[in-house]
Amino acid sequence: MLWQRLTLSTLVVVLPAAALAQESLTDRYREPAGRILGAALTDIEGWGKLEYLTTEIGHRLSGSASLERAIDWAHERMEAEGLRVRKIPVKVPHWVRGEESATLVAPVKRALPMLGLGMSVGTPEGGITASVVAVRNFDELDALSREDVEGKIVLYAVEWQGYGGTVRYRGAGPSRAAAKGAVAALVRSATGRSLNTPHTGALRYDEKHPQIPAAAVTVEDAEWMRRMIDRGHDVRVHLEMGARMLPDADSFDLVAEIPGRELPEEVVVMGGHYDSWDVGQGAHDDGAACMAAWHALTIVHRLGLKPRRTLRVVLWTNEENGLAGGLAYRKWVGDAIDGHVAAIEMDGGAEKPVGFGLGLRGPDGDASDEVYGKALGILSSIGALLEAIDANAMTRGGGGADIGPLMNDGVPGLALKTVGEHYFDWHHTHADTLDKVDPQNFRKAVAMLGVIGYILADMPERLPRATD
Amino acid sequence: MLWQRLTLSTLVVVLPAAALAQESLTDRYREPAGRILGAALTDIEGWGKLEYLTTEIGHRLSGSASLERAIDWAHERMEAEGLRVRKIPVKVPHWVRGEESATLVAPVKRALPMLGLGMSVGTPEGGITASVVAVRNFDELDALSREDVEGKIVLYAVEWQGYGGTVRYRGAGPSRAAAKGAVAALVRSATGRSLNTPHTGALRYDEKHPQIPAAAVTVEDAEWMRRMIDRGHDVRVHLEMGARMLPDADSFDLVAEIPGRELPEEVVVMGGHYDSWDVGQGAHDDGAACMAAWHALTIVHRLGLKPRRTLRVVLWTNEENGLAGGLAYRKWVGDAIDGHVAAIEMDGGAEKPVGFGLGLRGPDGDASDEVYGKALGILSSIGALLEAIDANAMTRGGGGADIGPLMNDGVPGLALKTVGEHYFDWHHTHADTLDKVDPQNFRKAVAMLGVIGYILADMPERLPRATD
Repeated sequence: MLWQRLTLSTLVVVLPAAALAQESLTDRYREPAGRILGAALTDIEGWGKLEYLTTEIGHRLSGSASLERAIDWAHERMEAEGLRVRKIPVKVPHWVRGEESATLVAPVKRALPMLGLGMSVGTPEGGITASVVAVRNFDELDALSREDVEGKIVLYAVEWQGYGGTVRYRGAGPSRAAAKGAVAALVRSATGRSLNTPHTGALRYDEKHPQIPAAAVTVEDAEWMRRMIDRGHDVRVHLEMGARMLPDADSFDLVAEIPGRELPEEVVVMGGHYDSWDVGQGAHDDGAACMAAWHALTIVHRLGLKPRRTLRVVLWTNEENGLAGGLAYRKWVGDAIDGHVAAIEMDGGAEKPVGFGLGLRGPDGDASDEVYGKALGILSSIGALLEAIDANAMTRGGGGADIGPLMNDGVPGLALKTVGEHYFDWHHTHADTLDKVDPQNFRKAVAMLGVIGYILADMPERLPRATD
Repeated sequence: MLWQRLTLSTLVVVLPAAALAQESLTDRYREPAGRILGAALTDIEGWGKLEYLTTEIGHRLSGSASLERAIDWAHERMEAEGLRVRKIPVKVPHWVRGEESATLVAPVKRALPMLGLGMSVGTPEGGITASVVAVRNFDELDALSREDVEGKIVLYAVEWQGYGGTVRYRGAGPSRAAAKGAVAALVRSATGRSLNTPHTGALRYDEKHPQIPAAAVTVEDAEWMRRMIDRGHDVRVHLEMGARMLPDADSFDLVAEIPGRELPEEVVVMGGHYDSWDVGQGAHDDGAACMAAWHALTIVHRLGLKPRRTLRVVLWTNEENGLAGGLAYRKWVGDAIDGHVAAIEMDGGAEKPVGFGLGLRGPDGDASDEVYGKALGILSSIGALLEAIDANAMTRGGGGADIGPLMNDGVPGLALKTVGEHYFDWHHTHADTLDKVDPQNFRKAVAMLGVIGYILADMPERLPRATD
């Protein structure tokens, strides 16, 4: 139509030179990106992988048989798909939850839904029964005397301040309570919305203090206990936890790739962590990401697209309680790190995606504004091909736990970003299940990873590094 | 200010005659409504009542000691406030949950969070273990042969279709499964959002079929079991329920009032149900309503306002599993029903309120459009005094279970309406707790009930009835 042609030419005329250069990257990959996008948005097989993983295998804690079963299943199927597959052996911490329960014994008797915190020690045989001291933050704990706390259970009834602000009570709270003589710690689950749902997650013991057992209780019970204590009641809890550490277990990072046609030693790596907590199905955290990255690679491969560089997917093991997989991958890469042109991690759930966040670190810290500007310009020209699915926002700031070791050595890191409305409702709970994943959002993530992964692996230039 | 005076007089001039009449009702009650509104919106004592009820007493199932404790506490305190208080004796069904659990025994073994349905029978000693047949609706059940169902547990994996559309599977599902020979029924909890949260609620046995035990499972587990069964697995569940009916128990409707200064035999009644399910704290359902209605009366009384007619609050007993309280109140009123000028029920939670819904029934059914128009005009003129808190929407359609028997005999019925965003997330769960109630929304409900209750009780005319 004449009108469209006129509009387009008018638009091109007014674009500045830099935008024109980006436009050429957009145009160069319009055709293959369209094929990837079209295949991903009409695909059912990727969802089938996610359904299998979450339904037949379920959650996948490091050291569990289900994690190794998930690795074996994906390994076999990736090979059947014709991808080049390798397993990097990784020794992983092997924490087991064991039997556990919390019971309110006074002023009334009833069960308290709970989840022991990952890496917690268990209780002594027969459990612990003690009065509860409630604090709203570390300042309130610090204001208490040792006498106030000794022999008691400290409850962190901490209001939700976003994940970063709240999770430090889960991480450091148990040892800080132990430093004052507490015999156990309870934390209000780290979430902004609760339907009586405990959230697990790792604690970090401070070696200076005794290791005490620690568990998450629900928002509902944390608030109720705090109110009862404020009203003068002696709230007493009986805690039994069979949690313990076993010897490190054998696991693997699973690596699948399409070798580069010109520069096979240069690599774009993308993926998520394959392990999960031992509750729910590890659907949003981080099964959907693993299946999306894998299936994006499958689609690129099936379309017969052979990128200039190697396009690699890694399903990292042991992100949740050790990061052994991310560290082992970095070690495995070794001096070839300079060949890593980009690392893409998806670990914020599979809600409606909006784009990617970019992190550029170097030995002297974050990249300059100029370097960020150049890199974001390149990404935006790729993002133009994702605009129709509203996933083209390319923003400064991004990374991920598993790609952190790569980024620390200068590899540009990208995080797939979503609207992030409900991720922390489900995070580390029995409710992180397939029914929470929207198939269309999952398809969009597959499309995004396929398009950006393929183009970054194929385009003539490389993304600039902090040191460029 | 001159500008204001000019604007006001301009406005008055252009109002049609009917609006002028409404304006006069608005103006007539501007001063007392302002006093009620101001007191309610700055009040802390009403919240204190709700905190006491939910924190110190908790849930309040018919027949429980906690319901009677709640009645005694409110009775005593209402009398101390100088209200006229009476207790109407009511025999209520006494269902007890007993110990209960569901365990998945194949293809993997794990606990299934559950809540037995109210009024369910228990399982035989030792429980029931059987394979699960999943259906998405009654049509799918009907399509199964008796052989497909006999000796099995029927799972209603019914997608959320709003409460009315979904709750019929909880109500009628167990008997319809029993009609085909099922030994137990599981229903997907009636909710649109789940964080692994079972929702209880009453079933209704059809006397034509055997009574089988029935329980709600979570959305997560219902969907997972359905998928596993669709994938060809034999999903087996072990169900143990100690549920049973005890002899009817003694309970009370609690009536508190300010006697009318001119027409004491004419009554505006408002309230909610004081009983709750035996989980959570009965906060939104329906403790907040009871405390809001009571405290609205307290505020009117404290302000020294003596309405022309009697302004009465009733905390009805046994709405959840019998409606004995609503029926007993109707019986207690007897022939004095014609003196009831309005009945106001709040039983949709205490989220952000938007106004009131009006129901006008007569012996020939719903009132005419003309009568509705007249009544809504009066309510809108009262609502104008609630506009500053965005609670002035007066709409056709409203009522409630406890005021239903009054409405069936012609009493105009009003329901306090809210935005209704999350009520069914919490409804009948362990998560219906004080932390879900926003103190400002609660204050607004107190203000609304105080203003509308007082004006309906004091205004010269009465709300029209369907027969008018």
